[in-house]
Amino acid sequence: MRILEEDRTVKVGNYEFGGDKPLVIAGPCSVENRDQIIDIAKKAREKGAHLLRGGVFKPRTSPYDFQGIGIEALTYMVEAKQITGMPIVTELMDLAHLDYFLEHVDVIQIGSRNMYNYPLLKALGEIDKPVLLKRGFSATIKEWICSAEYIAKGGNTQIILCERGIRSFDSYTRNMLDLTAVPIMKKETGLPVIVDPSHGTGRRELVGIMSKAALAAGADGLIIEAHTHPDLSVSDKEQTIGIEELGQIIHQMTAL
Amino acid sequence: MRILEEDRTVKVGNYEFGGDKPLVIAGPCSVENRDQIIDIAKKAREKGAHLLRGGVFKPRTSPYDFQGIGIEALTYMVEAKQITGMPIVTELMDLAHLDYFLEHVDVIQIGSRNMYNYPLLKALGEIDKPVLLKRGFSATIKEWICSAEYIAKGGNTQIILCERGIRSFDSYTRNMLDLTAVPIMKKETGLPVIVDPSHGTGRRELVGIMSKAALAAGADGLIIEAHTHPDLSVSDKEQTIGIEELGQIIHQMTAL
Amino acid sequence: MRILEEDRTVKVGNYEFGGDKPLVIAGPCSVENRDQIIDIAKKAREKGAHLLRGGVFKPRTSPYDFQGIGIEALTYMVEAKQITGMPIVTELMDLAHLDYFLEHVDVIQIGSRNMYNYPLLKALGEIDKPVLLKRGFSATIKEWICSAEYIAKGGNTQIILCERGIRSFDSYTRNMLDLTAVPIMKKETGLPVIVDPSHGTGRRELVGIMSKAALAAGADGLIIEAHTHPDLSVSDKEQTIGIEELGQIIHQMTAL
Amino acid sequence: MRILEEDRTVKVGNYEFGGDKPLVIAGPCSVENRDQIIDIAKKAREKGAHLLRGGVFKPRTSPYDFQGIGIEALTYMVEAKQITGMPIVTELMDLAHLDYFLEHVDVIQIGSRNMYNYPLLKALGEIDKPVLLKRGFSATIKEWICSAEYIAKGGNTQIILCERGIRSFDSYTRNMLDLTAVPIMKKETGLPVIVDPSHGTGRRELVGIMSKAALAAGADGLIIEAHTHPDLSVSDKEQTIGIEELGQIIHQMTAL
Repeated sequence: MRILEEDRTVKVGNYEFGGDKPLVIAGPCSVENRDQIIDIAKKAREKGAHLLRGGVFKPRTSPYDFQGIGIEALTYMVEAKQITGMPIVTELMDLAHLDYFLEHVDVIQIGSRNMYNYPLLKALGEIDKPVLLKRGFSATIKEWICSAEYIAKGGNTQIILCERGIRSFDSYTRNMLDLTAVPIMKKETGLPVIVDPSHGTGRRELVGIMSKAALAAGADGLIIEAHTHPDLSVSDKEQTIGIEELGQIIHQMTAL
Repeated sequence: MRILEEDRTVKVGNYEFGGDKPLVIAGPCSVENRDQIIDIAKKAREKGAHLLRGGVFKPRTSPYDFQGIGIEALTYMVEAKQITGMPIVTELMDLAHLDYFLEHVDVIQIGSRNMYNYPLLKALGEIDKPVLLKRGFSATIKEWICSAEYIAKGGNTQIILCERGIRSFDSYTRNMLDLTAVPIMKKETGLPVIVDPSHGTGRRELVGIMSKAALAAGADGLIIEAHTHPDLSVSDKEQTIGIEELGQIIHQMTAL
Repeated sequence: MRILEEDRTVKVGNYEFGGDKPLVIAGPCSVENRDQIIDIAKKAREKGAHLLRGGVFKPRTSPYDFQGIGIEALTYMVEAKQITGMPIVTELMDLAHLDYFLEHVDVIQIGSRNMYNYPLLKALGEIDKPVLLKRGFSATIKEWICSAEYIAKGGNTQIILCERGIRSFDSYTRNMLDLTAVPIMKKETGLPVIVDPSHGTGRRELVGIMSKAALAAGADGLIIEAHTHPDLSVSDKEQTIGIEELGQIIHQMTAL
Repeated sequence: MRILEEDRTVKVGNYEFGGDKPLVIAGPCSVENRDQIIDIAKKAREKGAHLLRGGVFKPRTSPYDFQGIGIEALTYMVEAKQITGMPIVTELMDLAHLDYFLEHVDVIQIGSRNMYNYPLLKALGEIDKPVLLKRGFSATIKEWICSAEYIAKGGNTQIILCERGIRSFDSYTRNMLDLTAVPIMKKETGLPVIVDPSHGTGRRELVGIMSKAALAAGADGLIIEAHTHPDLSVSDKEQTIGIEELGQIIHQMTAL
């Protein structure tokens, strides 16, 4: 079940996932408007964040919930990238948007709900662009590896894995962050593995400490929901941290 | 969270899901070749099965496992339908095949792995064709209802729900069949609900008794993996029953 | 993993669990006072219930919740038995009470939380009294069988197994009723298996339909929380049904 | 749900759980014989382990598996303590042994299977001796807190909590180590929290890395299964590490 013959890093711009230093992807759950994303990008960059995340198309449980503002939001992210130099990461849900993503996005994220979407994974196997493959929220280790295989089989081995918490019987946290998956997936696949402590806990006050634990478990990076005004986030505000706290997490990480 | 104002039935050919009588969808896990599916269809029809199922595109955990024989398999199913008069049910994984399905398939199945595939669900909301929506294997009741809403919101309310077992901590059975979901989903949505005791247990010897329990829980039908030579099935053979046993299940159901 | 060489029934007074007819154990979650339990017993008996249940010592998650009224409550149950002729079933939590239970109780219940309490199980292996062994709420099939083995190994094979729902990721129902466990445990152990649809669903409106499904799955009986004034129950009122509905369930069962 | 007004440490001999430095409890799953436990104790002590663990009474799923060698094993542990000065930790399953434990054992461990054994917890509330309360393998955060409350309510607040992995749908690891529980339980109870990476992963090769992650999550200590000849352990050998590796873990911990 080992995808790669040897450990492999994934390059994104000047950064390298799986290299010497862990990397931080930060940004809001959803891109809300032009000023919001550019403001967050600038401030996150100042604090040392490496890449910018932001939801453009949002997979939401209910069809009546906010679904993201779509392609227009992506143009704002591209602008934020031009201003800050941060490569951008956003989720692809529909192959209809693939060409647009190929042109503008630096890392294509596959969300938890789409980890079993094999036609989507196969299509990403044929492109030349890094893919961030989140673990399905009830995916076994074996299934997650196999989903990475669907991409790698097509020839694209620029895969970054992301542990983001699994479903359990307890509702105290939004998900159950499975940090043991970090060393397991690194060994089983040879790929870089990052951790999402925001979805992994669902609680702002746990993001910092679990970031630290994730890095100790060997994570090659973090993806964190951060906002200049966390309480005003249109989605996931309970798990979104402020820019100051983001800075502390990055500072602590660099100090290690 | 109630999709429909009133209870609703779904018509497929001369049959009506959610009407007075439970209906049985039977057939092999995978369509293997022309003779296999036609032979199974004839014999299942003789035993009283109402619709024919058969996997044409198979979502498999590993990209190296058998993936189904694709569109060619569908032509065999169409032939089996012409011979037996049984409406056909098969799984759609990729919108690229939608037109073909619209022309030839009577019920479009959305498998467990795609219950959160919202672009797919939205596309099915705009067609005029029954959809069999399987429960995701870790989907909550609320998420399952919301996925049905994604379809219904587009205008297509011809939705048949299917409980097929959820993931649990025990590996004795392949999945944990949640029969309580039957009365819950009937009440919450007003839609017909059927049960898949094959995936729901993963064990041939439990299919008969759990079919009986499903009907007692109010199921509007069953979807059962059956084969003329179960032990020779190319996939899911442990949970596939023979034609004789299929006949007994249908006989017992009719007698109730 | 088969405990017994052959299928075995368990006699309680004139009743036989695992015999031709399913049996119903009914009564309140907690014995609240003398009049309450005698009144419920009389009315449940009129409706055809066979045995009387009632909580005397209650294992509660919080030490600050009502813990049952103890030995005094047992004297009221004994009186209810004298009046109605119904054998009584209640939970033993502490071996300190064993002698008292041996003298007065007809079936000693081991609750879900104590399924792994091996010293308790071993002690019950050495007595001559039927034991109702509830499944732990996260017990695998194998663990449940092994717990029954702890009792049987000591020589006491008068064991009635009870499926009462397991823990899952969904909070729509209090527990996930695993009806597939009924045929599995009957085959694996040869012992009678009953179902608790009250704890298994946690919702009053689901008790009737899931009782029906349990019997269709082959259950040898039911244990149901019933009360003359369900809404006034001091514990578990959401899952407690009234006497009229109890009568309907028993009537329907007898008609099968 | 906060047990204590303020954060509290638990003293065991000269050590303090919840103080400035994390502590390591190490030793074999089972005490096998006199020489084994004394040899392990000496070598673990040399490597810097603070307390000695060893199973004397073993709760095993099957009554036919090795159950520990009982009180005799405890005399060997006492001897190992005299030789090395290490306080000893072992599991109490049966109140019949309480007096013996009170006299000889320094920390009374309550295992995962007994977290809901309320009569046992209540009895421990009335003693003056530290209790190591392991989390039930399917216990919610709230239930775990409540079990600690059962002890604290009696007056004994010398409680050390231990996260040891919970049950999940994946069998890749023996349990799912829930490190997020560490900061949560520290905040909710004010008590020291340690982590068991041996049961928490079930795999020897993951013990070191997850120990590091546990400490980063704020754990006040570790309890590790270690043996001079791990492959010869009579129980849990897959998760038992050797003395050299134990030394590395302690060395790394001290360096932090």
